[in-house]
Amino acid sequence: MSAMTRRIVLARFCDGPPVAEDFRIEDAPMPEPREGQFLVRNILISVDPGTRARLSGKPSYIPPLKLGATVGAFSIGEIIESRHPDFAPGEIVSLADGWAEHVIGDPRGFVRRITDRRLPLAAWLGVLGVSGMTAWFGLHRVASLKAGETVVVTSAAGAVGSAAGQLARIHGCTVIGVAGGQAKCDWMTEVAHFDAAIDYKATADLPAAIAAAAPKGIDVLFDNVGNAMIDQVIPLMRQNGRIVVSGQVDAYNSDESAVEGIRNTRAFITHRLMMQGLVVFDDLPNWGAAEAAMADHMVSGELVGRWEVLPGGLEATPDAFAGLFRGENTGRRLVRLAPDPDDFPKDAS
Amino acid sequence: MSAMTRRIVLARFCDGPPVAEDFRIEDAPMPEPREGQFLVRNILISVDPGTRARLSGKPSYIPPLKLGATVGAFSIGEIIESRHPDFAPGEIVSLADGWAEHVIGDPRGFVRRITDRRLPLAAWLGVLGVSGMTAWFGLHRVASLKAGETVVVTSAAGAVGSAAGQLARIHGCTVIGVAGGQAKCDWMTEVAHFDAAIDYKATADLPAAIAAAAPKGIDVLFDNVGNAMIDQVIPLMRQNGRIVVSGQVDAYNSDESAVEGIRNTRAFITHRLMMQGLVVFDDLPNWGAAEAAMADHMVSGELVGRWEVLPGGLEATPDAFAGLFRGENTGRRLVRLAPDPDDFPKDAS
Repeated sequence: MSAMTRRIVLARFCDGPPVAEDFRIEDAPMPEPREGQFLVRNILISVDPGTRARLSGKPSYIPPLKLGATVGAFSIGEIIESRHPDFAPGEIVSLADGWAEHVIGDPRGFVRRITDRRLPLAAWLGVLGVSGMTAWFGLHRVASLKAGETVVVTSAAGAVGSAAGQLARIHGCTVIGVAGGQAKCDWMTEVAHFDAAIDYKATADLPAAIAAAAPKGIDVLFDNVGNAMIDQVIPLMRQNGRIVVSGQVDAYNSDESAVEGIRNTRAFITHRLMMQGLVVFDDLPNWGAAEAAMADHMVSGELVGRWEVLPGGLEATPDAFAGLFRGENTGRRLVRLAPDPDDFPKDAS
Repeated sequence: MSAMTRRIVLARFCDGPPVAEDFRIEDAPMPEPREGQFLVRNILISVDPGTRARLSGKPSYIPPLKLGATVGAFSIGEIIESRHPDFAPGEIVSLADGWAEHVIGDPRGFVRRITDRRLPLAAWLGVLGVSGMTAWFGLHRVASLKAGETVVVTSAAGAVGSAAGQLARIHGCTVIGVAGGQAKCDWMTEVAHFDAAIDYKATADLPAAIAAAAPKGIDVLFDNVGNAMIDQVIPLMRQNGRIVVSGQVDAYNSDESAVEGIRNTRAFITHRLMMQGLVVFDDLPNWGAAEAAMADHMVSGELVGRWEVLPGGLEATPDAFAGLFRGENTGRRLVRLAPDPDDFPKDAS
């Protein structure tokens, strides 16, 4: 008797925006945990634009996925079988093992135990997951954010940016968000309570618009877009300004050689600027404290998440992913594979 | 009875490389110190390529010099009259008040007292002056240099670069210097004892040459050149690499819009890179300890300076400055206005 499960694999390499046909759903034997591992039944899986960089078959900043391999992704699920003494069946974990109904968890890799029952499970793949942690450690470790500073966040209605802007506001900073479209700007000012929101699509002179919203200049640029954006904001930065290189949306779909450069580097000397990137897994030993603080802010209502949970199960995942590149999503997009456990609040989505 | 002195002023704005005719020597009344100031007779004055940025009459990263104004510069001199209780006639100071035979010292501005009699006075305008301090704080404060790391220094036979490379070597690092010309490379390996010296003028593929000299990759890039250089070195950098933006020789003589950009910024995320500029006067409260440590290294012979002292007095200064842009100088160039005091070792130059 060999149980079966299902997973999604890369069927062909992507060239341009991904489409559902780039992937294939297939049956597979149920994975078997070894000593020190456990078997997880996924409840929610995440579709993330960053995955695109692995789908072209070409070397990139992360190794390319091979044809026929399971597509990697974050998920949350329930342990249904354990060969690890500290993890028991029934426990809820988030992990990063891919678009599959069942995955193997191994605490030597990435596994977070979810014990806080105050928030919907989906929150732990959004604000309380990698996106929110990137915002937290970008602001607090990389930029050493101080109360009273002025912060510009780009792609500010996205998963990382929306968390960064709110965390900066909670820290006592003036927050200016930049994003494309009126709906995103309305969300930033009305729901996330940023001090200003700028629709770059409706703004002829973006630096002038940012300067008008930041008359004292900018202390921290939390950038998710790329070089051209950074280059435009540098002349607005105050002495000892910090630039957090969080993401490069501009570059994910484009040829490296077509990317613009940062030219305004003389200001690094005259204005003592600092620019630094981060990979949030470096901060894993410190996630616990950040998760706890951010969960408190969510419970109190000060910090709101932007996510949506799509129905349809594993079959719906490839098109849910392709939809990111059609601009369909509002915040982080998740796909539901199974109902939430009874002891978590139900998701509003 | 009004004593007279002489100074050099800007006679016309520079367009392209400066020439002696851009300046004019003129008589002026002896400046009179106010309460809290003192009068200094200059002994050595410095000519520095960075001065060029102030001579075009156009706004730059520092305010432009007006026509008829005394040209700013570092100098060393003897106090000959004091209205400050802590500074007495006969004391030797370095200050930053310009190409003039007599200048006013004011400790509320930049004044360093020189009491260490173990080294020639000229050392305090070179390795122990702004150049050496920039090297020290760039490596130790900005880059947090650790023993065993690999450091690339550009413009590495220049005033700042030659100090940075030697300080990194003294700190136990592997040092690769990049400069133009065989003579500079010979100096780097034979006198400064860098581990490798690369003549960019004789190297078709500079990144490949650096990579060959740094098989483990680069931890710190101490850059004095500019964006195009930084962009070439970024792909060679190790995780957690630091880029010190010390100077931008490439940009001093060129139009800002013609400067190339830094395109390889994705590595800031994947390799957790950090880039930061510095203005060494921010570190003034900590110069004393750095000066003392570096003077010890010079006395022991571990750290050598690169400077030359030209004769000819104030009249010789404009052409000495113009000569920098004809590539004449070896290291920092100084002009002698008066003999060194007897209690300082004589300069070998």
